[in-house]
Amino acid sequence: MPLQITLVQIDNFGPWTESLGVNREADLQILQGELYTDLQRLFSVKGGLLFYSRFDNMIAVTNGIGCSHHNGIVKSIQNRYPITISMGVGIGKDPLSAQNKASKLLQEKGSAQSKKRKSILAHNGFLSRGEGMVHMVHADIDDFTRNLTDSVSAYEAFLKVNEIFLELSKRFLKKKALVFFTGGDNFLIVCNGISNKEIEEILMDVSEGLGLTIIGAFGRGKTALEALRMANQGLHLSREGKVKGILVSTTY
Amino acid sequence: MPLQITLVQIDNFGPWTESLGVNREADLQILQGELYTDLQRLFSVKGGLLFYSRFDNMIAVTNGIGCSHHNGIVKSIQNRYPITISMGVGIGKDPLSAQNKASKLLQEKGSAQSKKRKSILAHNGFLSRGEGMVHMVHADIDDFTRNLTDSVSAYEAFLKVNEIFLELSKRFLKKKALVFFTGGDNFLIVCNGISNKEIEEILMDVSEGLGLTIIGAFGRGKTALEALRMANQGLHLSREGKVKGILVSTTY
Amino acid sequence: MPLQITLVQIDNFGPWTESLGVNREADLQILQGELYTDLQRLFSVKGGLLFYSRFDNMIAVTNGIGCSHHNGIVKSIQNRYPITISMGVGIGKDPLSAQNKASKLLQEKGSAQSKKRKSILAHNGFLSRGEGMVHMVHADIDDFTRNLTDSVSAYEAFLKVNEIFLELSKRFLKKKALVFFTGGDNFLIVCNGISNKEIEEILMDVSEGLGLTIIGAFGRGKTALEALRMANQGLHLSREGKVKGILVSTTY
Amino acid sequence: MPLQITLVQIDNFGPWTESLGVNREADLQILQGELYTDLQRLFSVKGGLLFYSRFDNMIAVTNGIGCSHHNGIVKSIQNRYPITISMGVGIGKDPLSAQNKASKLLQEKGSAQSKKRKSILAHNGFLSRGEGMVHMVHADIDDFTRNLTDSVSAYEAFLKVNEIFLELSKRFLKKKALVFFTGGDNFLIVCNGISNKEIEEILMDVSEGLGLTIIGAFGRGKTALEALRMANQGLHLSREGKVKGILVSTTY
Repeated sequence: MPLQITLVQIDNFGPWTESLGVNREADLQILQGELYTDLQRLFSVKGGLLFYSRFDNMIAVTNGIGCSHHNGIVKSIQNRYPITISMGVGIGKDPLSAQNKASKLLQEKGSAQSKKRKSILAHNGFLSRGEGMVHMVHADIDDFTRNLTDSVSAYEAFLKVNEIFLELSKRFLKKKALVFFTGGDNFLIVCNGISNKEIEEILMDVSEGLGLTIIGAFGRGKTALEALRMANQGLHLSREGKVKGILVSTTY
Repeated sequence: MPLQITLVQIDNFGPWTESLGVNREADLQILQGELYTDLQRLFSVKGGLLFYSRFDNMIAVTNGIGCSHHNGIVKSIQNRYPITISMGVGIGKDPLSAQNKASKLLQEKGSAQSKKRKSILAHNGFLSRGEGMVHMVHADIDDFTRNLTDSVSAYEAFLKVNEIFLELSKRFLKKKALVFFTGGDNFLIVCNGISNKEIEEILMDVSEGLGLTIIGAFGRGKTALEALRMANQGLHLSREGKVKGILVSTTY
Repeated sequence: MPLQITLVQIDNFGPWTESLGVNREADLQILQGELYTDLQRLFSVKGGLLFYSRFDNMIAVTNGIGCSHHNGIVKSIQNRYPITISMGVGIGKDPLSAQNKASKLLQEKGSAQSKKRKSILAHNGFLSRGEGMVHMVHADIDDFTRNLTDSVSAYEAFLKVNEIFLELSKRFLKKKALVFFTGGDNFLIVCNGISNKEIEEILMDVSEGLGLTIIGAFGRGKTALEALRMANQGLHLSREGKVKGILVSTTY
Repeated sequence: MPLQITLVQIDNFGPWTESLGVNREADLQILQGELYTDLQRLFSVKGGLLFYSRFDNMIAVTNGIGCSHHNGIVKSIQNRYPITISMGVGIGKDPLSAQNKASKLLQEKGSAQSKKRKSILAHNGFLSRGEGMVHMVHADIDDFTRNLTDSVSAYEAFLKVNEIFLELSKRFLKKKALVFFTGGDNFLIVCNGISNKEIEEILMDVSEGLGLTIIGAFGRGKTALEALRMANQGLHLSREGKVKGILVSTTY
C-alpha cells in the first residue's frame, strides 16, 4: 500500500543567510531549530512525523494529511518567520519513490535558490485516510550507553552513530527505504515494500560489520505516528526481554 | 593556545523516554529541538556556540564562559523542563583533548543513565577571557544547490551531505579537530592546533575523493562566535570571487 | 446556539514555583509564555482560540474540538513540561455559563493547589462540529497609535488599555459575554446571546465614558477562528472607510 | 539612586498585521508570545526583567545592561522574525520618569506606525553597573486560590485580578511607581523613590477597598533580578509565617 511523503524546503535560504552579514550563525541555528519544532508540532498533531534531515530541507511522512492542512502550515510559517517554506508532496508504493516524486514536483516549481518561488505547495493529489499505510522500524543500539556514552568521548560516540547511520541508510536505500536519525542512538526506518526478512538481514549485516548489535522493532499504521506506536511497543517488549531477536514485530 | 569545550548531556534520558509510554516520539522530537535552541541562545549570548550532535549529548565551544553562567544554564533548564542536564567542561590545546576531558570529567560523576546524577557541572576550572583562542573553519560545498538540491532527490542530497560529513570528520579527527554539520551544506570545523596547509590538504583530498569542491574559510577569535565571524567574512569574499582557493583566510 | 469553553489550569502551580527557590522569576515568565504559545498552536490547529488570561489559568473557545484532542494536549504538556495542566470543558448557551460549567467541573476534581490532581480532563461531553456556534466581536480603539502610543508614555498607554478593558469586561459580563485583551489595542469579545444593538450600546457608552472611540466588528462561525475571520473582515472594511458605524457586521 | 528602563516596541505592527489578511489571529498570538519569551531570555540573562504589558509595547527594567547588548537583541530579532523592534532607553530617579524618557526618546525617532523606523535603539546613555539601583515589591493576594480560583469561575477570578491591578497601578502611579501583573495573583511593583511606609499604606488601602489582603515584600539590588530575589525571600518568609505584616522587608 502506498505512502505519502512531504518535502519541506526553505525558500532561497542560502542567499538570505548571506544577506544577514557575517555575525549570524547563532541566529541561524536558533531559527532552524525553531522552524523544525514548529513544523513537527503542526505535522504530528495530524499523525505525521517530520525528520530534520538537513534543516533547510526536511522530510515528513504525511499519510492522512491533506491539502488544506499543508496549505495552512505554509501560510502560518509565512506569517511568523522572516523566511518562507515551499513543499512538495509525493505518493509512492515505496518511500524512495514517494520522496522522489515530492522532490521532483517541487523542483519543477523553481530552484531552491530562486528569488521568485515562495510558499508553494506542489502536489499531485493526497492520499485520503485509509488509502495508504506506513511501515516503520524503530531501531537502536544494544547497550549503547554502557559501551559508548559512558566509555568513550562524546565526539567519538557521535561519530560512531554517524557511521552506523550512513551504513544503514546506504543499505536500506537499495531496498528503497529511508533511514533517519532521531537523536541518541535511535533510528527510524520508513520501509514500506520490504519484507521483515530483508530488514532483519540488513540489521544483522550492519551489526556484524560494525561490531555492535542493532535491535529493530517493526510497526505499521494508517499514519506515521500509529506505525511508530506499534514499533515502540515491540522495542519496549524487547528491552524487557519479553521478545527476542534482532527484529521484533508485535500487535497491540 | 587552549580552547574550552562543554559537553551537555541530558540526565537519564533513555529510561525517562521509556517511561512516557509508546506514543511519545513527536513530543520527544519537539523537546529535543526546543532544548537545543534554548541552550544555543544561552551559550551564544556569551559568544559560545553549541552543536546539536546527538541531541541527548551536545557539544559547545565555550571559551570565555565561566562557572556561574554554566551553573545558571543548568539551573534554568531544571526549572523549565521535565528533564535535567549535566555538563562537563574540558580545556585542552586541541579540540579533541578538550572534549575528551569534558567527557571524562562528566563520566566520573556517574553514568548517563544514572538515576542519581542530576544537574551536575563537572569541571577543572575555566579559561578566563583572553587566556585561550578558538580556531574555526566554515566549509561548504561549491554549487551544492545547482548540482544536488535542484537535481537529485532530497534524500539523496541528504545522504551525500552525510557522506561528506563522515569523511571530513574521520580525516580531521586524526588531526584532533572536530567537525560538525550545521544544516544545508555547511560544516564547522573546530581546529586549534592544525596548520592551514594541513586543513587545505584534507579539504582537497575529500573533495577529490567525493567528486565535488569543498571550500573552507578560516577564522580565529577569543570566542567561538568571533572566530566564526572571521571565517564567514572569508567565505563571503570567496563567494564573491574576491579571494580564491580551497581555504581562504582573511582579517577584517 | 451553544458554545464550548475550555478552562486550562496549571496543576498546583503556586507551591511548585515556591519550590524553585527565590531566583526563579525569569524562568517562570518564560515557562508561562511558552506554555501559552504551545497551547495556542494546539488549539488553533483545530479552529480554537486560547486567551492567556492569568497564564496559570487560561480560557479557550473550543467549539468543534473533541475529547481525544483535549486529552492529547494534556498528555503532550505532561511529556514536555516540568508541570502538568488540567482542563474543564463547559457547554452553555452563553459564554458566561459555559465557562461557569468549565470552572465548576474542574473545581469538583480538586483544588488548583491539590498535590493529587494532575492531568485531569473534566467534562460533560463535547459539542460535535455543527452543533454550536461562536459569536465574536473584534474591537479596537480608533486612532490609538496617534492619540496614545505616539503621544503619551508607554506605561500610560498601557494603563489606558487596562482601564478600557476593565470597563468593557464589567459591562459585557452583565450580558454574560466575556472580553479578552489580545495585545496592542485589541479586544476580543465572545458574545453568544447578545443582540448587535446591545453590543453597540455598550461600545458607545464605554467610548463616551472614556473619551475615545471603540470600533467593533461582529463575526460568527462554527469555530472561534471562523467567527474571528468574519469579524476581521468587517474591521478591515471599517478601517478602509467602506463601512461605517461603531459596530460593523458583514458576510464574506 | 537612578534606574534604567527600556521600552521595546514592535515597528509598524498594526499595518503589518493587517497585511496578513483576515485569518491571522492565532499566528499573531503565537508570534507575540514567542517574541516575549525570546526577549525575556535575552534581558534576564543579564539580570534584567521584561514585562509583556501590551505585547506590541513591552517594558523592561534594565539596570546593568549596556548599549552593545541592547543592539545585539535588536539585531537578533531582526534576523529571526518577520517584524523588527525598536527600543528607547531611559534613566530616571523614579520609574515613571525613566519610562517617560524611554518613551519620549523612541517617539522622537518616528511613529510606532512609521514605515521607515526600523530596528532603532534610541538612548541618552546607559547606567553602568553599580551606578543605579532597582527597588521592587513582589505582591500577591492572600489565600487567592482558596477564596477565588477554587470558589468562583475562572473569568470572575481573572476580572478580580484586573480590578486589583488597575487599582494598584493608579495608586502607585501617583507615587511615580509602575505596577505589572506577572500571572496568577502576582504583581511586581517597580518603586524606586517611595518609602516603605507609603508602599504599606497603598497596599493596605487597596486591600481594604477591595475586601482582600495584598501582601508585599520589598527588595533592592543592582539589577532587577537581584531586587526580585530579595523580595521573593521576604515573601517566602511571610508565607511560612516567619515574618508578619502587609509589607515585609528582609536581607539575605
